[in-house]
Amino acid sequence: MTGGIGAGDASAGIVAGRVALAAPGTEFHSRDVALGTERPAVFADALASEADAAASAAADAFFALQTEPGELDPVVLVRALAVALEGRRAELVAIAGIETGLPPARLNSELGRMTGQLELLAAEATARSGRAVEEDPAGEPGGAAFAPALALGHVPLGPVAVFGASNFPFAFGVLGGDTAAALAAGCPVVAKGHPAYPETSDLLAEILARVLADGGWPAGWFSLLHGRGSEIGQALVAADGIAAVAFTGSTRGGLALVEAAAARAVPIPVFAELGGINALYLLPGAAGEAGGGAASGASPFVTGLAQSVTGGSGQFCTKPGLLVLVDDAASRLTVASLASVLAAADSAPLLTPGILHALVTGIDRLRRLPGVDVLLDGPTDETDVAAAVPAALATVTSADLRADPSITDELFGPAVVVVYCDSIEDLIDLTGVIPGGLTATIHAAAGDEDALHALLRRLRLRAGRVLFGGFPTGVRVGRATTHGGPFPATSAPGTTSVGAHAIDRFLRPVTYQDLPESMRAAALSWK
Amino acid sequence: MTGGIGAGDASAGIVAGRVALAAPGTEFHSRDVALGTERPAVFADALASEADAAASAAADAFFALQTEPGELDPVVLVRALAVALEGRRAELVAIAGIETGLPPARLNSELGRMTGQLELLAAEATARSGRAVEEDPAGEPGGAAFAPALALGHVPLGPVAVFGASNFPFAFGVLGGDTAAALAAGCPVVAKGHPAYPETSDLLAEILARVLADGGWPAGWFSLLHGRGSEIGQALVAADGIAAVAFTGSTRGGLALVEAAAARAVPIPVFAELGGINALYLLPGAAGEAGGGAASGASPFVTGLAQSVTGGSGQFCTKPGLLVLVDDAASRLTVASLASVLAAADSAPLLTPGILHALVTGIDRLRRLPGVDVLLDGPTDETDVAAAVPAALATVTSADLRADPSITDELFGPAVVVVYCDSIEDLIDLTGVIPGGLTATIHAAAGDEDALHALLRRLRLRAGRVLFGGFPTGVRVGRATTHGGPFPATSAPGTTSVGAHAIDRFLRPVTYQDLPESMRAAALSWK
Repeated sequence: MTGGIGAGDASAGIVAGRVALAAPGTEFHSRDVALGTERPAVFADALASEADAAASAAADAFFALQTEPGELDPVVLVRALAVALEGRRAELVAIAGIETGLPPARLNSELGRMTGQLELLAAEATARSGRAVEEDPAGEPGGAAFAPALALGHVPLGPVAVFGASNFPFAFGVLGGDTAAALAAGCPVVAKGHPAYPETSDLLAEILARVLADGGWPAGWFSLLHGRGSEIGQALVAADGIAAVAFTGSTRGGLALVEAAAARAVPIPVFAELGGINALYLLPGAAGEAGGGAASGASPFVTGLAQSVTGGSGQFCTKPGLLVLVDDAASRLTVASLASVLAAADSAPLLTPGILHALVTGIDRLRRLPGVDVLLDGPTDETDVAAAVPAALATVTSADLRADPSITDELFGPAVVVVYCDSIEDLIDLTGVIPGGLTATIHAAAGDEDALHALLRRLRLRAGRVLFGGFPTGVRVGRATTHGGPFPATSAPGTTSVGAHAIDRFLRPVTYQDLPESMRAAALSWK
Repeated sequence: MTGGIGAGDASAGIVAGRVALAAPGTEFHSRDVALGTERPAVFADALASEADAAASAAADAFFALQTEPGELDPVVLVRALAVALEGRRAELVAIAGIETGLPPARLNSELGRMTGQLELLAAEATARSGRAVEEDPAGEPGGAAFAPALALGHVPLGPVAVFGASNFPFAFGVLGGDTAAALAAGCPVVAKGHPAYPETSDLLAEILARVLADGGWPAGWFSLLHGRGSEIGQALVAADGIAAVAFTGSTRGGLALVEAAAARAVPIPVFAELGGINALYLLPGAAGEAGGGAASGASPFVTGLAQSVTGGSGQFCTKPGLLVLVDDAASRLTVASLASVLAAADSAPLLTPGILHALVTGIDRLRRLPGVDVLLDGPTDETDVAAAVPAALATVTSADLRADPSITDELFGPAVVVVYCDSIEDLIDLTGVIPGGLTATIHAAAGDEDALHALLRRLRLRAGRVLFGGFPTGVRVGRATTHGGPFPATSAPGTTSVGAHAIDRFLRPVTYQDLPESMRAAALSWK
C-alpha cells in the first residue's frame, strides 16, 4: 500500500514507530475524488487509548532530549524533512491528487510552499536558538535598585497535537505549517490526519518516520492517528503530556477543542484557525475601473476575483466570500461581468461529500432568506460527488444583510455574495456588521482616498491581513506574514499559523537570573 | 470619603465616570488590618449588569478612538498616570497601609515599582507603535514567486478585564501591571477590585478618572467594579466587548475564568497568573557554605532565605515554599539555623481573615501527612486576625513527598517546607515531581557543577524564571523579565505579566499587504 503502514490490515496510523491499534468495526476506505469511488486501501479509527500512548511517547522523548541533549538538532531535522519531501514529490502529488481531486499544478505549488515553510522556520530557529532575546545587565553592586542580571531565552512548549485540515493536504496537513513550526521549535508532534486523504497522510508520516530513524531521533517524536469522529481528537487534547494544540478547520470543531483544553486539570493553549468570510470592498472609484459590460470582456479585477473565488474549488480559508460595493451603474456592470465569468468557470469536484452537502445546503438556505437574489445557483445535485462544481453568486442589499447577518455565514466552496450598499457611508458602517476573519481586502482608486482611510482603521480591527488591491487567496509565506486575526480567524489572536512567527506559538519564554557564563550556551539553546 | 465615589452611599465602583449601581443587601466595610476592625467606609457588590455597561462603554470608547484617531496618545496617558500616582503617594501609602497592614517602606517601594512599570511600558509603546515589526519587500514584478509587499504591525486587542490580586494593592491592583500593559497597548480597562482593599482601589480609580478627564479621554476608558463573590467576575468575562482577561490570584479562581472565557460564543484569551511553589534547590557544595550552627550566627543564605519566606508576611506569589537539599550534616546545620532565624521572625498580620484561615488549615493538614515533621507551628489561632504571624517550618523526606505530592500544595504566608533527599541523583529526579511555577532557584558552589547542569535543563522546563543564587521574591522589572511559566504559574505560557513584554499580551499582529506609502503612518500606529 502507498502508506506502508499496517500493510495487510486497516491503517489506524503510527504510534511511536509501531502500527496504531484500530477501534473494532471502524474501517473506512480512501476515496478517488475524480471517479467518486472508494479506493482499495483500508483505514480505521485509532483507539482513543492510542492518543494517550502517542502523547506519552512524545513526552518521554521530549524530556529525554531536553535533559540529555546530544547531537540531535531540530534545524537539521526540519531541513532533512524538506529534502525528503522533495525527493518523494512525484509520489506525493500523485496520491494527493487522487484523494483530493486537486490538479497537479496546484499540488506541486502547495508542496513547494510546504517545504518553503520548513526552510523558513529552520532559518528562524537557527537565528534565534542559543541567543538571548533580551538582556538586562546587572546594576552596580550595592546600588540602590534591585538589579540582578536577566537574560531572556526560550524553551519548547512540549508535545503538540496537530489537526490536519481538509483543504490543503500538504500545507495544512499532518506535516503542514503547524507541524513544521512545532518541529522547528523543538517540540514533538502527534498529528490527527484528516479522513479526506488518509493515504496521503500515511505517506507523509512514513517519510517523516524514515527521516527520524535515519537521524537517530526517538520514534515517539512523531505519531499519526486516523479517525473520523471527534472521539480521537478529544482524547488527544485531553491526553497527559500534550502541551499545546494546533488546529485548522471548522469553527464548531475548533471551539470544541478550545473548551476541552480549558477544562483540563492543566489547561493548555489551543491555536485554532477557523473560518471567516474574507470580505472584499470595492470602492466607487475602483468600481469605475473594474466594470465593463460582459460583452466587452472582463476587467482584470473581475477575472482576478473569479479566479480567487473558484481556485481550489473555493475551498480556501482565504476565499473571498463577500463582495461589498456601493450600488451604482459601475458596480452593476462589474457584478454582471462577474456573473458572466463565474458562469463559465466550472471547478474541480469538491474534496468530500460532506463539503458538497454543506455547500448545497448553505446555498439553499441563503436562497430562502429575505432579499437574497441568487444569480448563479452553484451545485444543486448532491448525488454526483465527482461532478464539476459550478460557481454560486447571490446579491443582497446592506439593509437585508443587517436584518439577517447570517447571510455572511461562510459558504465553503466556489460561492460569493455581493452586498449592495446605499452609499459609501453605508459601506463603511457595514464593516461593523460583517464578521472578522483572516483577511479584508480594499480595492480603491482615485477619488476613494477618504473612504480608504476610514476603511483601513476599521478593517484592521476585523482582520489579520488587510490587502490593498489583489485577492486574499494568495498567502505569501514570509517574515511579516499574519495568518490569524480576530475570532473566528483564530482562537489565539496574538499569533499566526503561517510565516516565521508561527514558531512563537510553540516556545515559552524563560528568564535566567544571574546566569553563570559557563551555563549560557546550555541555557539559551532550545535543543 | 477616601475614594470619593458614591459619597453618602456604599461604593460599588465607577462605570464610565458614574457611580456603579450596587446589588441590594451586599454592603461591606473596608478593614483596618492592624486593629482587626471594620472601617467606616461602606462598599457593595456591583450589579452584574454593570459589568455589561462598563464593557459596552469601553468598547464604544475603543472603537471611537481607533476609527477617529485624534491627539489622544496612550503613551501620554500612561506617563500622566505615573506622575499623578507619585503626586498622591502619601495618601495612597496611608490608606493601603491601613487596609493591608503592609509597612510604609514596602508600600513606598511597591508604588515606585508600579510607576516604574508604567514608565517602562510607555517607553516600549513609544519604541514600537508606528513602525513595522517585520517587512517583506515586494518581489520582482512578473517574478516567478508570489511576493506582494508585507508589513507587519499591531492593533490593540480591545477592552481588557483586569482582576486585582490580594497581595499587592499597587503592583497587582486595579492600576497594577496588567492595567499598565493594557493602557500602554491602547486598550481600555474594566477592573475588578480585590475586596481586601476597596478604599485603596477607589482612590486609584479616582486618580485615573481625573487623569482621563484632564486628558480629554472618554470616561469609558476605565471602570472599576467592586464585588466579593464570583458573580461579577463571571459577568465581566462573559460581557460583550471584553477582548481579553488578566487575572492574578488563586488557581481555582483563575481556572474558573479560563473555562468561562472558552465557553463564550467568541472565546477570548485569559492571562491568569496563578500559584506556584517556587522551589529552592541547595546543592551540597553550597550547603557546606550555607550551614553554620545556630549559635555561631546565621549565614547570608539562611538570613536571605528567611527574609524571602517572611517578607510581606510570605504573601508573595514568588515566596520560596520548598527548600530541597541532600540530607547531610551541612544541610542539617543549615535547616537548624533556618529554624532558629525563622523562630525569631514574626511577620505583620495577614491581609485577610481568609488568608489566615487558609494558612492555619493548610499547616494543620500538612502536619497530619505521613512523614511530615513540623519544626515551627506558624499561626494556630484564627481568632486574632490582627496578631503578628509566626513563621512555619516543616521537614519531609523526598520519599514521603513522592508518596503524597500534595505536600507541595502552596501555603500562602510565611511557611516553608524542607525536603531531604537521599542523594544528588534523588534531588535531580525530584524536579519531575515538584510542580512547575513562576520560579526555581539553584544555589550551587564548587563541586556542584555536574548537578547544576542537570538541574538547569530540568528546571527551565518547570519555571518561568531560573535563578542562580539569590531569592525569588525580588522581581526585577526589565526588558528580559518573565513573570509567567508553565501552569499553574500562568494559563498563557507564552506570555509574561511583568516587564516590557507584558504589552505583547494586549496586541494583535496585523499584516498589511501592498500598503500604500500614504497609508503607512495610519496603519502602523496603534493609536
